Amino acid sequence: MTRFAFTVEYDGRPFMGWQRQAHGPSVQQAIETAIHAVTGETAVVHAAGRTDAGVHGIAMRAHADVEKPIAPFRLMEALNARLRPDPVAILDCAVVPDDWHARFSCVGRSYVYRIVNRRAPLTFEQGLAWRVIQPLDTQAMHDAAQLLVGLHDFTTFRSAHCQSASPVKTLDRLDVAREGDRIAIHAAARSFLHHQVRSMVGCLAMVGMGRWTAQDLRAALEAKDRAALGLNAPPDGLYFLRAAYADADTATRT
Amino acid sequence: MTRFAFTVEYDGRPFMGWQRQAHGPSVQQAIETAIHAVTGETAVVHAAGRTDAGVHGIAMRAHADVEKPIAPFRLMEALNARLRPDPVAILDCAVVPDDWHARFSCVGRSYVYRIVNRRAPLTFEQGLAWRVIQPLDTQAMHDAAQLLVGLHDFTTFRSAHCQSASPVKTLDRLDVAREGDRIAIHAAARSFLHHQVRSMVGCLAMVGMGRWTAQDLRAALEAKDRAALGLNAPPDGLYFLRAAYADADTATRT
Repeated sequence: MTRFAFTVEYDGRPFMGWQRQAHGPSVQQAIETAIHAVTGETAVVHAAGRTDAGVHGIAMRAHADVEKPIAPFRLMEALNARLRPDPVAILDCAVVPDDWHARFSCVGRSYVYRIVNRRAPLTFEQGLAWRVIQPLDTQAMHDAAQLLVGLHDFTTFRSAHCQSASPVKTLDRLDVAREGDRIAIHAAARSFLHHQVRSMVGCLAMVGMGRWTAQDLRAALEAKDRAALGLNAPPDGLYFLRAAYADADTATRT
Repeated sequence: MTRFAFTVEYDGRPFMGWQRQAHGPSVQQAIETAIHAVTGETAVVHAAGRTDAGVHGIAMRAHADVEKPIAPFRLMEALNARLRPDPVAILDCAVVPDDWHARFSCVGRSYVYRIVNRRAPLTFEQGLAWRVIQPLDTQAMHDAAQLLVGLHDFTTFRSAHCQSASPVKTLDRLDVAREGDRIAIHAAARSFLHHQVRSMVGCLAMVGMGRWTAQDLRAALEAKDRAALGLNAPPDGLYFLRAAYADADTATRT
């Protein structure tokens, strides 16, 4: 048995999310089906983050165990050939120790959320960004975002379906940057609650629209109550960006 | 009668190109149909550039004459509502003088061509960039590109269907820049021949792969013969970026 670590890029639009579902296609299922086609084996693919329906992956990390002797490069090429026409691509494939786990060994996760701030509907970015019509004050958003950085009880920013043992998390980074009508929000933490990034982005958008002050955001955080949430941003603009591991070399080798 | 100038963004994937065609959908037809739905009028939409099938627009400029009295902002909003679900968006709409012409008044055009330089298939960029598997030496591409800048007979880089009176054009800019596995090639000129950007990009890719030297590119240019072309890049990565007009204020006002 060999454990392979993958770096995966995917377009979340046609999927019900990362995780295998009874009622529709998932990224996990697409990769597991490809592994079966290549090896004849029924492998289970574990990921650093289980993204929701419509959320995308730029460099998701995942792993699976394979019995068949095969070189990482050949496995990657074979999987990419079998994944077509699904919009899922294996960018990197490496052999990792048997105790390396894409989810449990992961010590840092980062997301980017993309907003297009304009009136006109999206064209080639339809489903790949959140269009916000109201002009957003990104400096106010960035400043308010810093209130969320650090150790907090993020109950307000947590989905009712969140399975995390605790709502207390340390947010390492929440940056808002604008380039023309494109806004990118970068978030990094050891781990996130379900819907946390989208909920934080939604509330920052409230600040950017001038409907909330930074103080309103602070009050929402301190309420520790989902009902205090201003807005949950749609999945369209959310991308799982990167996963970090303590042993850097196992995470990057092909 | 009022002449309106539009700035148009579009995803070229579902279209046979900008220009109205008997055998399939076009961006021009989509906008003309929307104008008819809004005004009841049969307007003709003229564009700064008539992009090919699969080529995209970031800020194409166009114009049309409308009899119905309507404010630019209202016309833009109504057109965008009618254009759905086609991936075409009016980003800007302004009243211009009756002799302003999106094509004939245009004094400068720029394109960007996007390459993703990696082995893995594309996911959310499928149809929006050219994937090149071979590692490309972008510095060699940029250096070679400078041989094409200036006044030249671009017959080698011209489609057999090109309707331009002369193959002699002045290329103002051809820059190649890399950011990670993303390569952007910017091209600017008063006007381009049919397929010129894609033909130049294809030959620069030959240089980047090491299959051509800069001297081979110069020889291809000097051959003034379509048969000397190394490679025509696919439409997927090509975006009409911007059109320039002598009277700057007519081109930017909403």
